[in-house]
Parts: sequence; structure tokens; C-alpha cells
Amino acid sequence: MKILVLNCGSSSLKYQLIDMETVNVLAKGNYERIGEDEAFLTHKVGGEKLVINKGVKTHEQALNEIISCLLSPQFSTISSLDEISGVGHRIVHGGEIFKGSVLIDDKVIEDIKACAVFAPLHNPAAVQGILACKELMPNTPMVATFDTAFHQTMPKESYMYPIPKEYYEKYGIRKYGAHGTSHKYVANRLAELIAKPIEELKIVTCHLGQGASISAVDGGKCIDTSMGLTPLGGIAMVTRSGDLDPSVVTYIMDKENISPKDMESILNKKSGLSGMTGLAPDFRYIESVSNENTEAALAVDVFTSKVAEYVARYAAKMSGIDGIVFTGGIGENQINVRTKVCERLGFMGLTIDKELNNVKSEERKISTEESKVLAYIIPTEEEYMIAKDTLECINIK
Amino acid sequence: MKILVLNCGSSSLKYQLIDMETVNVLAKGNYERIGEDEAFLTHKVGGEKLVINKGVKTHEQALNEIISCLLSPQFSTISSLDEISGVGHRIVHGGEIFKGSVLIDDKVIEDIKACAVFAPLHNPAAVQGILACKELMPNTPMVATFDTAFHQTMPKESYMYPIPKEYYEKYGIRKYGAHGTSHKYVANRLAELIAKPIEELKIVTCHLGQGASISAVDGGKCIDTSMGLTPLGGIAMVTRSGDLDPSVVTYIMDKENISPKDMESILNKKSGLSGMTGLAPDFRYIESVSNENTEAALAVDVFTSKVAEYVARYAAKMSGIDGIVFTGGIGENQINVRTKVCERLGFMGLTIDKELNNVKSEERKISTEESKVLAYIIPTEEEYMIAKDTLECINIK
Repeated sequence: MKILVLNCGSSSLKYQLIDMETVNVLAKGNYERIGEDEAFLTHKVGGEKLVINKGVKTHEQALNEIISCLLSPQFSTISSLDEISGVGHRIVHGGEIFKGSVLIDDKVIEDIKACAVFAPLHNPAAVQGILACKELMPNTPMVATFDTAFHQTMPKESYMYPIPKEYYEKYGIRKYGAHGTSHKYVANRLAELIAKPIEELKIVTCHLGQGASISAVDGGKCIDTSMGLTPLGGIAMVTRSGDLDPSVVTYIMDKENISPKDMESILNKKSGLSGMTGLAPDFRYIESVSNENTEAALAVDVFTSKVAEYVARYAAKMSGIDGIVFTGGIGENQINVRTKVCERLGFMGLTIDKELNNVKSEERKISTEESKVLAYIIPTEEEYMIAKDTLECINIK
Repeated sequence: MKILVLNCGSSSLKYQLIDMETVNVLAKGNYERIGEDEAFLTHKVGGEKLVINKGVKTHEQALNEIISCLLSPQFSTISSLDEISGVGHRIVHGGEIFKGSVLIDDKVIEDIKACAVFAPLHNPAAVQGILACKELMPNTPMVATFDTAFHQTMPKESYMYPIPKEYYEKYGIRKYGAHGTSHKYVANRLAELIAKPIEELKIVTCHLGQGASISAVDGGKCIDTSMGLTPLGGIAMVTRSGDLDPSVVTYIMDKENISPKDMESILNKKSGLSGMTGLAPDFRYIESVSNENTEAALAVDVFTSKVAEYVARYAAKMSGIDGIVFTGGIGENQINVRTKVCERLGFMGLTIDKELNNVKSEERKISTEESKVLAYIIPTEEEYMIAKDTLECINIK
């Protein structure tokens, strides 16, 4: 059984072809800068990497190029599209409609379009990807997996904002969260690794990357998450502000005469650790100079403090926690970030083993034997998770 | 030594005359609805209460009426203004200029005016009060005590927002906090009550009222607080939203075509626990119906959860805490709020004694003997604290 996983960004198309029997990634890649003359495809098979510079206008054209690579005799990945048993599409926003992965039909496509209000760049791109696939492989079942679905189990206490409730009723303004597939994967993977039923565990999952979100997972169900209506909320990120005193927003808009859309753009692209320090929007760089640069040190302190504070507050929400998981680019690779976060959590009995923690992107326990709270690094596998969901949905059919 | 404490709101003037030797409140009261024909003064001396219905246009006129009451032979509180050794003025916003209480001179008055950008209703009223006093008692020293001063010890990590730093440089946009006099008083009072040097204590102070803020006090110094640029930030309050995913703000403004000032007003007056549930903006009422009304139960859960989450995150910031203090109208009187907050903090070894907690507005310990974290109710004494600061500043002179 081979599953193709597609992840359509506003101007990119990432993919993986996964053999579900062997759990092998047969091929993967990314078409970047779709819509521009400088568009290019990076295709990887085994150790080989192929770069194709070819301007494509649409996600459909990009998909055609990707399919050509998969079928290319040069790699002999597959010899016919019939070998693909299903296609899993990653969808950024599923609103309140989608509480799990679903087989795609016309109704689902319409509903994904309706959810585009909160993901105006991503959902329409995903729909393009779905329609292009349908054209190319009309008989192959397709499944939609939503970044928001895992968070749909949140109770009202967590998802309702303390604002006039008419805005929820009129526009659906509430907390939706993001990175759901990643949070779900690493929480379940932790349960597997420690051989305990997830139903009995209280876990805080820290997906830390360019975008960063933290979730409280109680008995396998998300009960709160840091990202909000959009991926701007929660902790301070590399270029995003995270949650703010809203008077900061209105004060700046008033003083600078900025429109809501422009303000949102500033808070998404010019803020966060980079905006507050004036440093380049690259966490690895910021962390690397934090010993000699006081602004960089400030940025790292703000980030690690906010992460630790979220873990602590979710411990309060769940009456204690059994373990925390670090994942995502920063969570998997930034040793000092993990150290600093865990050190701030010593008050709840968490102790980190600095030797075990001295590693990048490896699945392993990093808390000491004596630690009252487990800490793990678990590299995220969103594509595998989407493929797994896809297979399940196909089999149910 | 008698000190007069004045607290000028936008349309009110609260006051207390305190005998500092006996720590007795000789008289106190409130002139409400200043500027309206329906303005009235409630003056209290001992057990007696006098209500005077007299329209006054300005804080100066109100102050004249108050002074008449103090001098009135009916109460014989004082027989001459010379008996007042000093006047302490409560000022809402001291910006980055004022890090403690100061003797008032012309420069201080100018600086208080300059800080009015972040407290446009309160600081100008306070200046009116100061000028009126100067007129009536030109030789009496006056002291300004700032609600923001106690928070000026916050490190950059806590007070800088993750937004472009030009907004801090241009407009002074940063976290200032509020209720500083109350946080300072209850933190120091806890140290007194347990007979330990405050320098050795880590305390979280919860000032919970119509406005609510929570502070992390490490060694007597505030290192973080929940309120932000203005008293809109932090936890969800009765009518205020607290911190939000800023895209919620920009999304609503865009959809409803609302100006920044109107949006801020909605978030201050129509939001919070009342806005999200549609219930009356009265915490006592909401709490009283929370057993039969699911919306009220939701409001109480949101509030108590947010308070507990702040305590937990400040425990992470300070690497553990020795004690928490409840103060303010809700903190002193709402038994169930204290119970629910403390129960959520069981994971850090806090246990509440339900018998001891079954009390309103009384200074006492409410944690059990075995509790690893102390919990206290300490009724706040902002006026006394202002009087104390006033006396100190006068004596230094």
C-alpha cells in the first residue's frame, strides 16, 4: 500500500510517497515559489536529490511535474499511478466542521472552501491540490487531514474567548489551534514509547518551530492549546507576536493609522523575537549569538520562559503532568532551549539529564531517572500521520 | 500625624484621613458622578454615614465639600487644615519616569501630565486633585504614589512585548502593570505575617476585583505582572478581555469596520466573563448562580482557571513559590474562587484548608499545615500604603 501525502502551501507543494507496509518514504520533495518564473522542484529518492528549475503557474502544473518524477524510469519509484492506493491532503483549517480526517467528496471540498476565512492563503491552495489530484487520479480515494481537528476536543472553557459572544455566533471566532497532526502524533508516540495507555496520561506537547504551539493532552484528548483563532496566537515566535494585551494592538493602529489587515501582517511577519530585538528572523542564528549578544540572549530568555510558562499553566489545567515532549525544528534541534525550559520546570520535579539531552533530532528520553515528570524529544512525523489517517479512512470505506 | 489620601478617578474622588500614630481611619468617603447634577458625596466617620447630594462641576469643588465635612463641628474630625501633615495622591500611571513615590513639585506635575497618554481619564483627574489641594493647603507637602511604580523592577524579558521595537522607542509601548500599591502591600504583609525577610520569599499576589492582576514578587521585587500597557491585559476580568490572540482583534475590526478606540472600548466594557456569557457584569451575581446556570459556571471556570494558570506560570518564572496571596473584592470575599484556584494548584503541593477558607475579608492563612505552598487572604490596604509612603517621603525631605 503506497500513500501519497500532499501539503499545499500558498506557493509551495510538499509531498511524500510512503510505503505503509515498510513505513519507508519512497520519495519526497517540495515545489517552491509556485506562480513565479523562478519556481523549482527539489525531489529526493533515497540518497539522491534532483533539482528541476521550471516555472509553473499553478499547483496543478506543479503536481504534474511531481508525478512525472515519481513515474520517471530514472528512479523507478512507481511505474503507474495505480500503485498509489490513496492520497492524503493536509488542510490547515477545518473550522468547527472537521473533527477528524475524512474521505474527500464534493461536500468536503465545499466545506474546506468555507473554512478558508481563517486560512485565506492555505485552504484555497489545498483545494487546488485536491482538484488537480482528482483530475490525474479520478479513481484514487483521497483523504483530508486537518491541522485543527485534534484540537476540536477542547472544552468551551478553553476555546471561547472572553469577548462578546455575538462574535462567536456571527463569525465563529474562537480558539482553533494549529499543528494538530504533530501534537497528536507525538502525544501518542510518547505513550507508545513508555508503554502506557494514552488514556491514563497527561502530556504537554511542545511543537517549537518558526511557528510554535503548545498543547495540553489529557487522556489522549487535546484540552487546550496555545494557538488561537489563527497561528498568530500563543507564545512569542520568531516573527509572530503571540498573545498580547489587545490595547497594544489598538494603540499602535490608532497612532500609526494602520488598517486591521496591515496590523495583522506586522504582528505575523515583523514581530516576535526578531521584531523585539531587531535581529534576523532565524532562531538558529539568534541562539548561536546569544552568548555575546544581549538582545539575542533576551530573545532566547523570552522564548524559553514562555514555553516553560505554558507547560506550567497546562500542569495547572490538568492537575499535574506525566510528561512533556519537544518536537519541531527548534524543539528537536536546539539543545539549550530544551535545557532552559526544563530548568525552569524544576519546581514541579522535572530534572533534565544534560548528557541525554546533548543530541539533535533523535527520539529519546532526556529527563533523569529521578525526574517526577518525563521529558522526551520526539521528531514529528506529520506526513506519516496523514498517511496513517488516509489508510484508516480508506479501509473504513 | 494625620495624612489625607486622595484617589481621583475620572468622575470620582475617594479619600481617607488616616491618623498614622494609631493607624486609625478618622474619616473616609467618596464623591461620585463629579461633573453631573446628580453628583453626591458619601462621608463616613466612625459608624456614621452622611450623604450629601450636591452637584459639583470639578474635582476642586468636590474637594472643597470634602474639606468642609472634615472641618465640620458635627464630626469634629479636625479643627484646622494645619492638622493635616501631608496629602498622598494615588496616580494611575507613572510611565517609566516614576519608580517609587515622590514629593510633588511642578516638575512632578508636568511628568504626571506626560504619563497621561496611557491613562487619559485618570491622570488628568489626579492633576486636578493635586492643583486643588495646592490651592487649599499651599504649605502642606504632597506626595504622588503610582499604581505602576512597584512594577518598574520588572526585567526586560517581562516588560518588552514581542513586537517591532520601534514602538517601544517611539511610544513607550511596554508592560507597565497596575494595582502596584496593592501588590506591594500584600506581599510585604505576608512576609510580616510569617515573620520571614521578604528578600528570601517568592510570592504570587492575586489582586482580584472588577479589575484583576497577578504579580510575581521575588525577594520583594516585582519580576512580572499580568496587566500590560493598560489595565486591559492579563486574565479575563468581569468586563475586560485580558490578553488575546491579536488576530481576534484585527479580524473583528475588519469585519465590523470598528475604529481602534471603539474596539478598545468593547474589549474593556463589553467583554470578559460578562461578554462571553451574556450575564450581568457582576462577579458576585455570576458566582451566586453558577450552580444552576451553565454559562455562569463557564465564567467561573474561565476565571479560576486563568488565575491558577498565572500562579503556575509565575512559579515557572521564579523556580517555585513560597506563598500566594488573595486580595481585592473577589479575592477577599469569594470563597469558591479561592477554593477552585487552590485545587488547580495541588500539583505543586498546595492544599487548602476548607474550614479556614470559609471566611470573607479576613486576614488569615487558608492553606493546610502540610501544604508546601502557603496561601493567605490579606485584605488590601492601598490607602494606608499611600499614607505610609507619604509619611516616608515627607520625613526624607
